Amino acid sequence: MTAPRRGFASDNAATIHREVLAAIAAANSGHAFGYGHDPYTHTVERRFEDVFGAGARALFVFNGTGANVLCMRAALRPWQAAICSDTAHLHIDEGGAPEAIAGTKLLVAPAVEGKLTPAAIDGLLTRVGDEHAVQPRLVSITQSTELGTVYSTGEVRAIAELAHARGLLLHMDGARLANAAAALRCSLREVSFDCGVDLLSFGGTKNGLLLGEAVVVRDPALAGDLLYLRKQSMQLASKMRFIAAQFDALLTDELWLTGAAHANAMAARLAAAVGSLEGVRLTRPVQANAVFAIVPETVRAALQEQFDFYVWDEATGEVRWMCAWDVTESDVDAFADAVEACLQICQ
Amino acid sequence: MTAPRRGFASDNAATIHREVLAAIAAANSGHAFGYGHDPYTHTVERRFEDVFGAGARALFVFNGTGANVLCMRAALRPWQAAICSDTAHLHIDEGGAPEAIAGTKLLVAPAVEGKLTPAAIDGLLTRVGDEHAVQPRLVSITQSTELGTVYSTGEVRAIAELAHARGLLLHMDGARLANAAAALRCSLREVSFDCGVDLLSFGGTKNGLLLGEAVVVRDPALAGDLLYLRKQSMQLASKMRFIAAQFDALLTDELWLTGAAHANAMAARLAAAVGSLEGVRLTRPVQANAVFAIVPETVRAALQEQFDFYVWDEATGEVRWMCAWDVTESDVDAFADAVEACLQICQ
Amino acid sequence: MTAPRRGFASDNAATIHREVLAAIAAANSGHAFGYGHDPYTHTVERRFEDVFGAGARALFVFNGTGANVLCMRAALRPWQAAICSDTAHLHIDEGGAPEAIAGTKLLVAPAVEGKLTPAAIDGLLTRVGDEHAVQPRLVSITQSTELGTVYSTGEVRAIAELAHARGLLLHMDGARLANAAAALRCSLREVSFDCGVDLLSFGGTKNGLLLGEAVVVRDPALAGDLLYLRKQSMQLASKMRFIAAQFDALLTDELWLTGAAHANAMAARLAAAVGSLEGVRLTRPVQANAVFAIVPETVRAALQEQFDFYVWDEATGEVRWMCAWDVTESDVDAFADAVEACLQICQ
Amino acid sequence: MTAPRRGFASDNAATIHREVLAAIAAANSGHAFGYGHDPYTHTVERRFEDVFGAGARALFVFNGTGANVLCMRAALRPWQAAICSDTAHLHIDEGGAPEAIAGTKLLVAPAVEGKLTPAAIDGLLTRVGDEHAVQPRLVSITQSTELGTVYSTGEVRAIAELAHARGLLLHMDGARLANAAAALRCSLREVSFDCGVDLLSFGGTKNGLLLGEAVVVRDPALAGDLLYLRKQSMQLASKMRFIAAQFDALLTDELWLTGAAHANAMAARLAAAVGSLEGVRLTRPVQANAVFAIVPETVRAALQEQFDFYVWDEATGEVRWMCAWDVTESDVDAFADAVEACLQICQ
Repeated sequence: MTAPRRGFASDNAATIHREVLAAIAAANSGHAFGYGHDPYTHTVERRFEDVFGAGARALFVFNGTGANVLCMRAALRPWQAAICSDTAHLHIDEGGAPEAIAGTKLLVAPAVEGKLTPAAIDGLLTRVGDEHAVQPRLVSITQSTELGTVYSTGEVRAIAELAHARGLLLHMDGARLANAAAALRCSLREVSFDCGVDLLSFGGTKNGLLLGEAVVVRDPALAGDLLYLRKQSMQLASKMRFIAAQFDALLTDELWLTGAAHANAMAARLAAAVGSLEGVRLTRPVQANAVFAIVPETVRAALQEQFDFYVWDEATGEVRWMCAWDVTESDVDAFADAVEACLQICQ
Repeated sequence: MTAPRRGFASDNAATIHREVLAAIAAANSGHAFGYGHDPYTHTVERRFEDVFGAGARALFVFNGTGANVLCMRAALRPWQAAICSDTAHLHIDEGGAPEAIAGTKLLVAPAVEGKLTPAAIDGLLTRVGDEHAVQPRLVSITQSTELGTVYSTGEVRAIAELAHARGLLLHMDGARLANAAAALRCSLREVSFDCGVDLLSFGGTKNGLLLGEAVVVRDPALAGDLLYLRKQSMQLASKMRFIAAQFDALLTDELWLTGAAHANAMAARLAAAVGSLEGVRLTRPVQANAVFAIVPETVRAALQEQFDFYVWDEATGEVRWMCAWDVTESDVDAFADAVEACLQICQ
Repeated sequence: MTAPRRGFASDNAATIHREVLAAIAAANSGHAFGYGHDPYTHTVERRFEDVFGAGARALFVFNGTGANVLCMRAALRPWQAAICSDTAHLHIDEGGAPEAIAGTKLLVAPAVEGKLTPAAIDGLLTRVGDEHAVQPRLVSITQSTELGTVYSTGEVRAIAELAHARGLLLHMDGARLANAAAALRCSLREVSFDCGVDLLSFGGTKNGLLLGEAVVVRDPALAGDLLYLRKQSMQLASKMRFIAAQFDALLTDELWLTGAAHANAMAARLAAAVGSLEGVRLTRPVQANAVFAIVPETVRAALQEQFDFYVWDEATGEVRWMCAWDVTESDVDAFADAVEACLQICQ
Repeated sequence: MTAPRRGFASDNAATIHREVLAAIAAANSGHAFGYGHDPYTHTVERRFEDVFGAGARALFVFNGTGANVLCMRAALRPWQAAICSDTAHLHIDEGGAPEAIAGTKLLVAPAVEGKLTPAAIDGLLTRVGDEHAVQPRLVSITQSTELGTVYSTGEVRAIAELAHARGLLLHMDGARLANAAAALRCSLREVSFDCGVDLLSFGGTKNGLLLGEAVVVRDPALAGDLLYLRKQSMQLASKMRFIAAQFDALLTDELWLTGAAHANAMAARLAAAVGSLEGVRLTRPVQANAVFAIVPETVRAALQEQFDFYVWDEATGEVRWMCAWDVTESDVDAFADAVEACLQICQ
């Protein structure tokens, strides 16, 4: 590893908060019962009640796919379906885990700017009681979305109300919940449980942990089932204290917010810097930490020689520039300069 | 966390090697593509060829259940079965993951000192071609075993020969492979692939990592399939470099061996110290890092007030004293003293 | 049961061919080994080679869901996906069996008149080698389609060529294969295997059997695997001779064709009779045994008091009038008269 | 098919009751809504309340594996286990369907004469609340058993009491329930629900139907779930009236009892005829319609040239002679004579 190099590929490409590493090191003393049956893990789990409200029950897992699939396995019987958007990670980026591991059929609605709408959900609530059709029982939304947009709390509340009125539960894939909360200037609780969320995948990895996500629920029956499901779903860490320690650090002094707000600011800075350049078309509202754009093919190629990022849509040439918590203003400025330079050279 | 306190509950209760933590910290600079698609992870993966032989292909996963289930999903079609012992972790401690996640029926043979035998395996190789019965396709053995015993290389070879002759693959659950290699004074390769193992779960967590296991195989077709299966099985770390870094440290200067040999030595020390005490009956050969014993119920209870350890068999009162890599001679001596003291007081 | 009453709900609402019942009765003598291991079943299985070509291997199963899911379980590994149309029975009417039982994610393309197109399939053949996405391995088409249309042999051949060129297998859901063959004036083989089909669900139930479908494949490896999968998938009849006998009757003197051609003719007769009535709009080409139409809501309601049929689309009011093999000319004429009468009364 | 020939292979090798065939033929008139949504099927379903008690809810399925797996899918969440005997069909003859389709781990206890005991069940009710172990939730017993023995009603009641006291449900695999009821001179209800059974697989195929089994439960919530699970589990017949008709015939004038009592009597006749012959050792109590015996290898081979039957245990040479409902006294006498003749010739 030579001089640090940061790109815009993903918040997963980023480093670990030094506070998080320090917390791991601090926990690395003496023995502790495994699998979360240690006092320290219990303490950190209880901190989630402070953050998400009394009765919130948190279980730490390894990764986001695990958190999402665990929620589906807990909430759904085999003939029940989950509703999600056509841009949902659950649908397009879980390698078929919902179907193969949870055995769940996804009912997919077209998203508007990456967001599900009550109308789209309502359109899928058909054939209730028809044994030939799967029966919707869960709505899953991503906050902030895969397209860098953010549901308003009113939008989430409207979805929750529809879901609950029709006997469905609401799951929030919060791999980037921190970015949404930062964008909305809300607490984590306000952006999730206060809006009617029943099951939450709360992301740590994209928010500066080494690895770790938390499944958070309020229904004690679900929480009890989740203990067995976590183990069976291969998501139970034996040296749990080292995942707990990371979340301990993340919740301390709102470290989650510091990183997320910075990442969002960097995306805004990038959008501001390149949005008005001729040859760059921003394709999505920049509301969290992602910038989506279309640039000429030659410009894209030239840029990728200098900075890592992904092409989001091969057909349209749309690219995604994701700002991680550790991207600096100078990183952004250097990238914006490169965009400008490539545009000039390539055109 | 106050003064360090170490017990004999599990090698999972132990700390992280400082070299491993240092490697994580060293890797924590700049950005790297996620999901293992970074040069550093590739480098560490290739180190497994040095260790396990040319062609060995390693994939890092989160935990042992994940590694074992991944091997079953890669090796087996739905009507094919795995053979294991009645003391196998796969059978009694995976929370039903082999059945629920891999869909695999286990055919269970009685173990002798925790070990499968060719005769026991052969007895299960019946009804070949009978569509009403699952068809054995995989033998899974644990090295070192759940009872602290170690297969000789000859024993493994004999099982591999039988398996291959009958068209079966051999899986080794090596959650404690390092302890077995240390006990046999063999290399990791000699104790696994050189004996005919086809799929290996190589344990890191019990050997001093924060978390991390490697699935190692030699068949390129299996390796290709495993990439998809790892993702779908919720075992793909996004910030993979930090798992790779841990294995990098573990393979450097044979750190894996240092810890494992020490743990084995501590178990031998403990067995020697308490084995001849009246009131203590050692119940299994002490060949790796575990000591199994039966002590009077009152002694057990008194001991557990001072030191963590598990009752292995409620019916017989058999207890397990597991020596982790970080247990010291004085920890062992203090525990042995406590055993002796409790025996005197309680009797 | 009083006077026979026939409607237009489904070909599943129909009776059993008397030749089929007679074949069951004829087979009902003496004992025969169960599970298809009897000479008579073997003989009937071999008749499928005459019909579908040398090497075609048939396995009898209970129902269409079973046949389709069996094909998916045989053809696909867990990370592989099947491509089908958004009107496919597989997608909307199997109660989630593909996902829950086969663990398969379906990739869904918009159909044109109920038919998949090479272009639509091609649009789904993306992200090959990307472990985060399921990997397409099977295309499934329905012949005749759920909308009563029929793929030309050229259309099937074009799909097969694309599929094979991209390393995919082609499955045909032939619940109404007989109707398609009758419509195209082709043999069963010409309309399936000769067009490049790899796995076929050949429907008997909708074609006048009591119950029974056949899975037909040409790859001997698939056929071998299917024996185990049929049992495990709960599709293995113990008194198999009575399913074999039904297919024996169906293949004798082209009974399958007699019934299917008649059913098609009845649909054409119905379409001709009502298609030009004011207030009736035929919504799909009538190419097999189904007529789709939109009639005024009050007309629909009045008609359903006299004849059974289904509303296909609650939103548009589209109805389906399915002609079974046993519907007579006078049934059709009576129904057409009723349509005309209701239109006059209701308007 | 030449002259009728009957053997002792299985009750599945037998013919269909002529009353059953007649009922199918009688139902073969006019159209009926598919999938059981027809008045006739509803009527027959309600007859099950007369037979099994008020509130009993029956669903018809195709085969025994389907009935058993359906019960497991309805009763169990993924981390819950079923307890059965080591001779249970569920464990050894379902091709891995419980594991692969229901995802259920079976906890297996040694049977005594084919029967589970409360003590054996109790020994498996361990590790309650331990997330590393599957949690028992269902006991499954077979009545009459796979070894031709019959639980007394007291024995079933004792198992039900234990199960219910520990929060478990009781499933009865009644593929041969009729034979058990006949043997005990009890009604079908007395031998099942009155003893505390919660879920019943009631066999029709082995009792003289063409094919068909009924899942019967009393809990309305289970019954509701089963509708979806039956469809998804590929056990929903479209032309349901023809399965209903068979059960209608079976329940009329206690046809089920006539056949079963006769089959039992034939087994008793056979046992009496050959039990005292030198060279024949009856190995199990003959309580229903099966005779298990050990005869010299040469005798077995000579017999199998004349009559079909299965070797039950290759290791011991134990054979099974199963008496179907349609085996006649002269069949039995001819077989007994053949046994005697073979013994004389072969020795």
